[in-house]
Amino acid sequence: MAGETVITVIGNLVDDPELRYTPSGAAVAKFRIASTPRTFDKESNQWKDGEALFLTCSVWRQYAENVAESLSRGTRVIVQGRLKQRSYETREGEKRTVYELDVEEVGPALRFSTAKLNRSGSAGGGGGGRSFGGGGGASAGASMPDDPWASAAPAGGGASAGGFDEDPPF
Amino acid sequence: MAGETVITVIGNLVDDPELRYTPSGAAVAKFRIASTPRTFDKESNQWKDGEALFLTCSVWRQYAENVAESLSRGTRVIVQGRLKQRSYETREGEKRTVYELDVEEVGPALRFSTAKLNRSGSAGGGGGGRSFGGGGGASAGASMPDDPWASAAPAGGGASAGGFDEDPPF
Amino acid sequence: MAGETVITVIGNLVDDPELRYTPSGAAVAKFRIASTPRTFDKESNQWKDGEALFLTCSVWRQYAENVAESLSRGTRVIVQGRLKQRSYETREGEKRTVYELDVEEVGPALRFSTAKLNRSGSAGGGGGGRSFGGGGGASAGASMPDDPWASAAPAGGGASAGGFDEDPPF
Amino acid sequence: MAGETVITVIGNLVDDPELRYTPSGAAVAKFRIASTPRTFDKESNQWKDGEALFLTCSVWRQYAENVAESLSRGTRVIVQGRLKQRSYETREGEKRTVYELDVEEVGPALRFSTAKLNRSGSAGGGGGGRSFGGGGGASAGASMPDDPWASAAPAGGGASAGGFDEDPPF
Repeated sequence: MAGETVITVIGNLVDDPELRYTPSGAAVAKFRIASTPRTFDKESNQWKDGEALFLTCSVWRQYAENVAESLSRGTRVIVQGRLKQRSYETREGEKRTVYELDVEEVGPALRFSTAKLNRSGSAGGGGGGRSFGGGGGASAGASMPDDPWASAAPAGGGASAGGFDEDPPF
Repeated sequence: MAGETVITVIGNLVDDPELRYTPSGAAVAKFRIASTPRTFDKESNQWKDGEALFLTCSVWRQYAENVAESLSRGTRVIVQGRLKQRSYETREGEKRTVYELDVEEVGPALRFSTAKLNRSGSAGGGGGGRSFGGGGGASAGASMPDDPWASAAPAGGGASAGGFDEDPPF
Repeated sequence: MAGETVITVIGNLVDDPELRYTPSGAAVAKFRIASTPRTFDKESNQWKDGEALFLTCSVWRQYAENVAESLSRGTRVIVQGRLKQRSYETREGEKRTVYELDVEEVGPALRFSTAKLNRSGSAGGGGGGRSFGGGGGASAGASMPDDPWASAAPAGGGASAGGFDEDPPF
Repeated sequence: MAGETVITVIGNLVDDPELRYTPSGAAVAKFRIASTPRTFDKESNQWKDGEALFLTCSVWRQYAENVAESLSRGTRVIVQGRLKQRSYETREGEKRTVYELDVEEVGPALRFSTAKLNRSGSAGGGGGGRSFGGGGGASAGASMPDDPWASAAPAGGGASAGGFDEDPPF
């Protein structure tokens, strides 16, 4: 890929990350962050919160599992990713556009916390058709498959009845 | 301001910039850019366009006038700005959110063009209550007023009849 | 501050962070990161490491203590900071320039690890004249004092005998 | 390439760009920019310049020619590029490291100027073994050859006598 819009956002998780698996067994975690700028108000001599920027972020595979295990509602994070736009149609046939972040790297910001780190996936895992072994060194961007949700058309339909046709998956 | 999400986008103008003036005489230019990533397709041995990212950008004062005079539909630009989210309600009472870029700096990318530069505003300008003299050195971010459109409630209504109530202004 | 060059770097710590205290009791942690790009080599069908970029990073106060407690040699991190240049003269009177990163935010990247987070400083700390309580919400950039090392001229000289006069402090 | 440190810098050209050609006929322009942050001094109620960050930037082929034709000493520019580190040895055998920017995109910032744009290379050029036709759409990063200076070892040595052995080429 070339010419992508890579951005870095500092924010706080609005909710716990949601971890799911595609039919082919790939993990994907989605989380939403709020990034709130602040202005210094000379009159009150205090910082005042500005309007927050909200962005939905998605991350894949072992990285997704690490995120789901480590981060939770309220965690302050640093996220670097590709800013993407996705268009879809509502049930009423209206076009909507959402902006999302395809995460390249993410982690907790240590401004207010310490972190105890554990190397992930070392135990081998196995099971469930999810094997991430070895791919470790690869850049997400380089080895990223096409969006598995796209090919996740459920045979029986069950899950999609819930509203996937109208809303983005999260 | 602190904690803002400053991003850089390379893209092409989708249309000519639109230049307007607030009632107080401040110029603002809005333009929309499309940033198109590309993937190298191994089978065809060619670059293939990915899905474009569209962003509306706004820039103020003398900078707005310079943009309106210099850039046009199709121009490849580099834009640095603060990514902002703005929420509004449609006539039907539905909430919508748009993402926009408050431009800090913008200029034509010289990949496919040369540029002949002229210092702006040196002729003095005058007229129309727009005087930008001297402010040159100031960072846009630092001296940015509140959004003049907010206070741009037109007395007579004429221009605004077109639908400002439902859509974002551009 | 306006007009600073804020950059984000993904890299690995070359060594454990070094934590020090200024005479006035402010903590500062310095750490060096290596960021290694990779190219895909078509012939061998493998990724190949490019030349690493090394950068020295510094972070202050409670954030410094959190970094020193959480990160260690080899940790993969995401760092956002202001790129700065510092010039100094060697003993021989030659001018040297180093580039450094004044950290705004830093944390472990979760690509290969999970993290268990603990809110820092909540225990109260006390002792040693280092009290960071409350400053939490403030942006580093906004409340950053001048470089305390500058005013850290040691009366007795002991520590500085080691060669601080020629080399950058780390 | 993956995992590169892409940064954006706003600054002013310290000198006119220098345009050269490699033995194989590829154009390369080098220019140095100074990026000066500013702090608001409450006492004097004025902005004060901070310490400038200097970076040497290089850009290739048609882009190099466009830069050399369009920009000059003092021009305010926006530059996006890959931050690189290059180590070399002085005649005395000392190691030195310089940081440079491999330009992906660059253009004049329109804060204080207007720009009149002309599509480059359209006239066909010809001559001198420099043909850039068509490559236009390609991302610099993707099609960038190895540093031609590296292979520019002059058979007879003449040119190198001037001091290339100690200093970086610019």
